Amino acid sequence: MELIVGPRTRVTPFTDRATAAGITKAMVYNHTVLPIGTDDPAAEYRALTETAAIWDVGCERQVQIAGPDAHRFITYLCARDLRDLQVGVARYAPMCDHQGRLVNDPMALRIDDTTFWLSIADSDVLLWARAVAGEGGYNVEVTEPDVWPLAIQGPRAEDVVAAALGEWVRDLRFFRFERYDHSLEGRSIPMVVCRSGWSGQDGFELFLMDGDMGEQLWDLLWGAGQPFGLGVGAPNNPERIESFLLSFGGDTDSESDPDEAGIGRFVSLKSDDPGQAGHDFIGKEALRVRRTSGTQRRLVGVVIDGGPPMPLRSPRALRSRDGRPAGTLRALTRSPRFNANIGLALLDPPWSEPGTELEVTLDGADRSATTTTLPFNLDS
Amino acid sequence: MELIVGPRTRVTPFTDRATAAGITKAMVYNHTVLPIGTDDPAAEYRALTETAAIWDVGCERQVQIAGPDAHRFITYLCARDLRDLQVGVARYAPMCDHQGRLVNDPMALRIDDTTFWLSIADSDVLLWARAVAGEGGYNVEVTEPDVWPLAIQGPRAEDVVAAALGEWVRDLRFFRFERYDHSLEGRSIPMVVCRSGWSGQDGFELFLMDGDMGEQLWDLLWGAGQPFGLGVGAPNNPERIESFLLSFGGDTDSESDPDEAGIGRFVSLKSDDPGQAGHDFIGKEALRVRRTSGTQRRLVGVVIDGGPPMPLRSPRALRSRDGRPAGTLRALTRSPRFNANIGLALLDPPWSEPGTELEVTLDGADRSATTTTLPFNLDS
Repeated sequence: MELIVGPRTRVTPFTDRATAAGITKAMVYNHTVLPIGTDDPAAEYRALTETAAIWDVGCERQVQIAGPDAHRFITYLCARDLRDLQVGVARYAPMCDHQGRLVNDPMALRIDDTTFWLSIADSDVLLWARAVAGEGGYNVEVTEPDVWPLAIQGPRAEDVVAAALGEWVRDLRFFRFERYDHSLEGRSIPMVVCRSGWSGQDGFELFLMDGDMGEQLWDLLWGAGQPFGLGVGAPNNPERIESFLLSFGGDTDSESDPDEAGIGRFVSLKSDDPGQAGHDFIGKEALRVRRTSGTQRRLVGVVIDGGPPMPLRSPRALRSRDGRPAGTLRALTRSPRFNANIGLALLDPPWSEPGTELEVTLDGADRSATTTTLPFNLDS
Repeated sequence: MELIVGPRTRVTPFTDRATAAGITKAMVYNHTVLPIGTDDPAAEYRALTETAAIWDVGCERQVQIAGPDAHRFITYLCARDLRDLQVGVARYAPMCDHQGRLVNDPMALRIDDTTFWLSIADSDVLLWARAVAGEGGYNVEVTEPDVWPLAIQGPRAEDVVAAALGEWVRDLRFFRFERYDHSLEGRSIPMVVCRSGWSGQDGFELFLMDGDMGEQLWDLLWGAGQPFGLGVGAPNNPERIESFLLSFGGDTDSESDPDEAGIGRFVSLKSDDPGQAGHDFIGKEALRVRRTSGTQRRLVGVVIDGGPPMPLRSPRALRSRDGRPAGTLRALTRSPRFNANIGLALLDPPWSEPGTELEVTLDGADRSATTTTLPFNLDS
């Protein structure tokens, strides 16, 4: 089906450039178009893993928390401790509801003393934050600013961004960022330049702070990147499954918590750090109880036999060898790196144990699936 | 661009049937596929306004509020007074945040004494309600049940649904519903049958309560509807603009309140009913203040000269005749009924006054636009 955009489904400042560069497939993410692929996925994968790829991720919206209570408020929102977050630093910070279920898994950026951005996955954190702020009486303003991320990912990403924006970017460490205005023909392209991105490769996210300058920024990077083999791409499902980066809302459902989603290590429970007083945050007690229950589902890797499968249209049931329901397959790809079919599955105990043999029906035929730990470690 | 679905963007129980019946265009709504059109929009409009149309609106997700505090909680969530809402009755009930901004404009249904559904527009009410319930300590469970609406709309909708489900549906009044199990070849299709729908025509929404029975329900209606001229369709932009039904998130932005969106009459402020004690709800004081400020934008109708325009890809600036910014055009269509270009615009005062002459650039050319009251009244 053809994706129709309109005032409710927003285009980004980069949509037209991404389309002109070869994007033919898209999804919708945060009420915004997310380009998802060209007609040549092998070339996309090669660019990302061998040279560099440019991705329109304008759909990765920012929820800005600003005001006198901003730091206290964001500390309460996020399950990861942000009390020591400094200006210029980003941190992956899952957010939970009062029952410990994931609300989103944003990257939090401290822009200045009293201004933070949550760079969000696909759920309305704007509403969530406004609800909590309103009920709790926090003195903060929660808004969605005119900010649009553009990603450059891959082993040559640093060369591309340095050629476009200057050598200084080489000194940026992982999850560090700088405010930067790029002068171009008498105009300025204001942005936050962060070393981050949704791939297992090196890379940058450029948070464009003026939606009218999107094509100028794209063209600048595109031109600077050609000597380094920059190609158009999009968030890359094979690579992100190989590297195991969580796709919130795809790998998870509305009942998932951080532990089952494999990101429990980013939750700061006091019990994990006996020497330190923990921070108070939404869902803390519920998460503590969940950790002791032992009945939880787990997101695990699965390796599935046979030839390359069709893309997964919706979660598929996984069964034990004797036909009992074991859970659901939530992501699936043919891995170029491992030359195997790999996927992510939410499984009930005891099926989540590594090495468990399961079955799944794909494209009308039964296949064998074997569970494995994450991230995948299949290099032989 | 081709719309790609996957575990994060859900298909509905009706997606394949809708596609087989001729749907070629889609959007994403509540993280779910929303079919939006065939290749023959004129036939869709004729079916809706002259016979009947079947729409896959499974993306209209239900947020279920259940538990001892459910009625008290939903009364606090909604700006419209739901204290007297009876089982079997639905009510259009906008929800606001603490600053009076729209969160969503659902239809609320009381399923039983302690169970309510919010049949939502495109925003994560699940998160909003969980945040408020968690912060306020309400004893409710907030979930998204396995419920998928299918709409039959048009002047012959009653005949179609009566032929499929029984003559009893003719007695259902507007915004009234019944629980009903339809027996079919030894199986049951459980549903809530409601006289409602997002069109200015008569019609029904069938809330299928078992996602595995979607194709059976579609086929049942499709077969029963052929003698009455049932055709495939989708939420119809020309007809809904002609009739003025709000498209939350398209006609509105993240700062809009009910008054500016033209649905202020569905907000129960005590001052509107001096003889009655008002209900307490989120945003009440803010809405009271906004009503007295007189500086608000308004959503108004606009009639635009010239031939049929291209579909609106994003909101367009409207200018006064002397070039001052007046607001944005947020919806646009060629109206079959009025044989004119009509649209919806969010305008600052004084440009929102009926009869104001404005300008807008569409498809590269300037056009004249004249404001008018809503709903449109252009029949000559």
